Amino acid sequence: MMFCHLGPKLALILEQFLFSFDVAEELKEAIAKKNHKLIYLYDTNLVDEIWKESRPKPPNKPIRVHDIKYAGVDAASKLSYLRSQLLDAGSSAIVISMLDEIAWLLNLRGSDAPHSPVMYAYLTVEIDGAKLFVDNSKVTPEVLNHLKNAGVELRPYDAILSEIESLAARGVELWLDPSSVNAAIVNTYKSACDRHLENLGSKNDSMTKIYDGSNGQSWGPSGVYKASPISLAKALKNPAELQGMRDSHLRDAAALAQFWAWLEEEIHKDVKLTEVDVADKLLEFRSKQAGFLDTSFDSISGSGANGAIIHYKPEPKSCSIVDSKKLFLLDSGAQYVDGTTDITRTVHFGEPTAYEKECFTRVLQGHIALDQAVFPENTPGFVLDAFARSFLWKIGLDYRHGTGHGVGAALNVHEGPQSISFRFGNMTPLQKGMIVSNEPGYYEDHAFGIRIENLLHVKEINTPNRFGGMEYLGFEKLTFFPIQAKMVDVSLLSASEVNWLNDYHSQVWEKVSPLLDGPTHEWLWSNTRPLVKQ
Amino acid sequence: MMFCHLGPKLALILEQFLFSFDVAEELKEAIAKKNHKLIYLYDTNLVDEIWKESRPKPPNKPIRVHDIKYAGVDAASKLSYLRSQLLDAGSSAIVISMLDEIAWLLNLRGSDAPHSPVMYAYLTVEIDGAKLFVDNSKVTPEVLNHLKNAGVELRPYDAILSEIESLAARGVELWLDPSSVNAAIVNTYKSACDRHLENLGSKNDSMTKIYDGSNGQSWGPSGVYKASPISLAKALKNPAELQGMRDSHLRDAAALAQFWAWLEEEIHKDVKLTEVDVADKLLEFRSKQAGFLDTSFDSISGSGANGAIIHYKPEPKSCSIVDSKKLFLLDSGAQYVDGTTDITRTVHFGEPTAYEKECFTRVLQGHIALDQAVFPENTPGFVLDAFARSFLWKIGLDYRHGTGHGVGAALNVHEGPQSISFRFGNMTPLQKGMIVSNEPGYYEDHAFGIRIENLLHVKEINTPNRFGGMEYLGFEKLTFFPIQAKMVDVSLLSASEVNWLNDYHSQVWEKVSPLLDGPTHEWLWSNTRPLVKQ
Repeated sequence: MMFCHLGPKLALILEQFLFSFDVAEELKEAIAKKNHKLIYLYDTNLVDEIWKESRPKPPNKPIRVHDIKYAGVDAASKLSYLRSQLLDAGSSAIVISMLDEIAWLLNLRGSDAPHSPVMYAYLTVEIDGAKLFVDNSKVTPEVLNHLKNAGVELRPYDAILSEIESLAARGVELWLDPSSVNAAIVNTYKSACDRHLENLGSKNDSMTKIYDGSNGQSWGPSGVYKASPISLAKALKNPAELQGMRDSHLRDAAALAQFWAWLEEEIHKDVKLTEVDVADKLLEFRSKQAGFLDTSFDSISGSGANGAIIHYKPEPKSCSIVDSKKLFLLDSGAQYVDGTTDITRTVHFGEPTAYEKECFTRVLQGHIALDQAVFPENTPGFVLDAFARSFLWKIGLDYRHGTGHGVGAALNVHEGPQSISFRFGNMTPLQKGMIVSNEPGYYEDHAFGIRIENLLHVKEINTPNRFGGMEYLGFEKLTFFPIQAKMVDVSLLSASEVNWLNDYHSQVWEKVSPLLDGPTHEWLWSNTRPLVKQ
Repeated sequence: MMFCHLGPKLALILEQFLFSFDVAEELKEAIAKKNHKLIYLYDTNLVDEIWKESRPKPPNKPIRVHDIKYAGVDAASKLSYLRSQLLDAGSSAIVISMLDEIAWLLNLRGSDAPHSPVMYAYLTVEIDGAKLFVDNSKVTPEVLNHLKNAGVELRPYDAILSEIESLAARGVELWLDPSSVNAAIVNTYKSACDRHLENLGSKNDSMTKIYDGSNGQSWGPSGVYKASPISLAKALKNPAELQGMRDSHLRDAAALAQFWAWLEEEIHKDVKLTEVDVADKLLEFRSKQAGFLDTSFDSISGSGANGAIIHYKPEPKSCSIVDSKKLFLLDSGAQYVDGTTDITRTVHFGEPTAYEKECFTRVLQGHIALDQAVFPENTPGFVLDAFARSFLWKIGLDYRHGTGHGVGAALNVHEGPQSISFRFGNMTPLQKGMIVSNEPGYYEDHAFGIRIENLLHVKEINTPNRFGGMEYLGFEKLTFFPIQAKMVDVSLLSASEVNWLNDYHSQVWEKVSPLLDGPTHEWLWSNTRPLVKQ
């Protein structure tokens, strides 16, 4: 995005491949109000013009097949489901530009983006075929064969717009998700539809253009503009995906145990480590685990006041030393071949104050309340959000972020369509097979940050009753890692909350200890001992 | 509303005084879709035509002044606040047809409607005056003097439409709440505005009609259509109104104690009493209390399976005997000169089953959770709704009604704008001074119904922190009456829930026992003894 002066007015030249249609339309409207002008960049790549030769080459690491033992459902079946959705919507083709949707749909993974195992590509799916637009150099013979089996043809990445034009020229009702498909594709399709109609019109002068978009009864295609059907399908994990998530979380926990045992020892030896040193060391431990690929996001490693900055990213030159006398918040995650992790723990290496313990304990109570929630089907996530805040509210505290986001299976660490948030707009019900984070927190500016985050799988609960024939849902924990007992003010917990914590730690020990030995095994033992309520 | 056959089509003739404009418009749209026709009844009162002489005379019991010691704020001050709201909205007059709004605004009460202390009237308030349209025969000299002091003139009830016409003819921008003002008024105003514009137009041919409604810049008035500003003002109770609510609830509790002590004794003597007998006896006890005026709604007196019918109204000829071996649900309330009550208790006269106790206890846990909730300002009621359901959800149970409604102070037992409901549409935040019911329940078809209802006052909570500078809110209980200990499965309660119940019962004893003597005093004592958790 860049600004050029055009006489008295400002023009915003928009690289329309970089913005979704929705966002581009919003920008257009906003700048029109100020009497400026939006110029779509179309035939010329202004960004390339400016970079000239110095622009970094696009990544071209090979694409790999996401093994069916982790994917659970083959690409052909997913495409077949998608085609049934197209027919239901009165559409005969869809263009997909969300990289995680393409990766999920075709059971492919790539290495083109940091933290996300995706490849740069577009995909068009018609009733009788599909085309993947991708740089050929990334396609191995194995991937080519995999695509062939799924009935997917290869096309050059740059050929997407001419394909869109040809779909419109053939009168195809194309499904476009305006919130994810870029402006270039939507605008290309719309212009091509207009031209298609003009051609038809010139053949038959008595016809007038009719756009209705609802079925095939109009004189030409106009597009089906609605949310991608893949987002929800991808969110509902199948048994293989869930097993991969469970397995990768245990290996991740093993790496975390090695890391925390190491860190506590270093801090107690008074070794000075920066927030970045610590994050790097964690990466080192994780990278030794089977199937490790990447971090799933930039680690948020915040000592003391830095922990209060919700999206803090420590930089080597400016970050702090991890202070043994302050709270330390570490939010991190990894991409494994079979799953994606995202976990936050907050610890104190010395003696926390009573106030820090109270805040931590109330965050923990919120975490437990959400973890234990049982709710009827069709409940949107926001209904559960207050459970996670209510213990903080009692003493006039709160946090300014949502409580939970969706997580991909060996895919993006943030995905929709569900969320658990105090913003009431997202009406997507939590559904069986979804994965959400459970991450209440409390942040005191210039002092400390607390967050306790596990990932949860939405599962059916076998309740003794099913009022109104409804299914009741609850959560299975995916994350198994100790919550620092030192931070807990047991006097604030109910007997049932103490039971929750003790039961959780006993499961952590049972599941993770077999992956550990030596001092780390001992560290896990001492960090999973039951608390006793007086 | 009645139907007439007009050739092949059906015409719905709508008595437009009986429907709000919004509802009439919806009806119009709905029947137009079916090719039927809506005929507004306007100059002729078809209902009168059909009733002829046999129609009951409209009520004409005298209006009374609602004492300033209960109202708290005088009518002149309320009118002055309303006028500031008119100016803010770019309007110079408002027409009010909601009877409770008129009663609240003018500190008047009437006896024209069952259960609600209101009088049939319309009110117009302009910047420099106000007119009450009411049957003169109901106006006592005291009321006349009260109105004069508030600057309110009297007009005949039937003169409202000609007043609306004259407001339009004078070019007054009238504020109309389309959800509460009847269709006759809105249609009269709209037609009169059109005529006003035509007159202006004929004086100046070059002028065209311009409706903008936003300010005084159009050529004529078009009305300000938005929610009445009185609804929220009325919902925010002042200290005098709150004191009246507290006081009347204690007298109501005394009557209830007399009633329940009597009922238990009768049932144990094996006297056969119907659901209606029981409700009548309760009315008898209540009517002996100082300031008693009326019931605040038809008592829901349901034995066994009848308790599962949420809005059950027992009829003398068909109702059941109150069965000593079944649960008995009694939802009732009264209008007193100083306040309005609404309470539900569910009891068993013999031995409840373990399942009935579990259901009751989970309803109670929800009731306690909502009662104890603390939440930041700007929280809509629906955010708290799940607190009241969560314990039922854990065993797959739920209830199909909202958890709380607003309650008027010596006014309607149901009022807006707030609610606590699983329907997520009502974004009105709960605010200091509001009164809401807390009434979770559980209903098993053909078996039993359980509901536990208290009224609560939304008050500021003095939390030790105020994150983000927010005010934190919670509840003060207005209802003080025992919850039957026999129904509670103590093993399901947390220590803090047991404390809540014991503390509540100790307050009930302290506040209500001074109003009782003899066996009723004893009944209250034995029904407020602390529970012990093993």
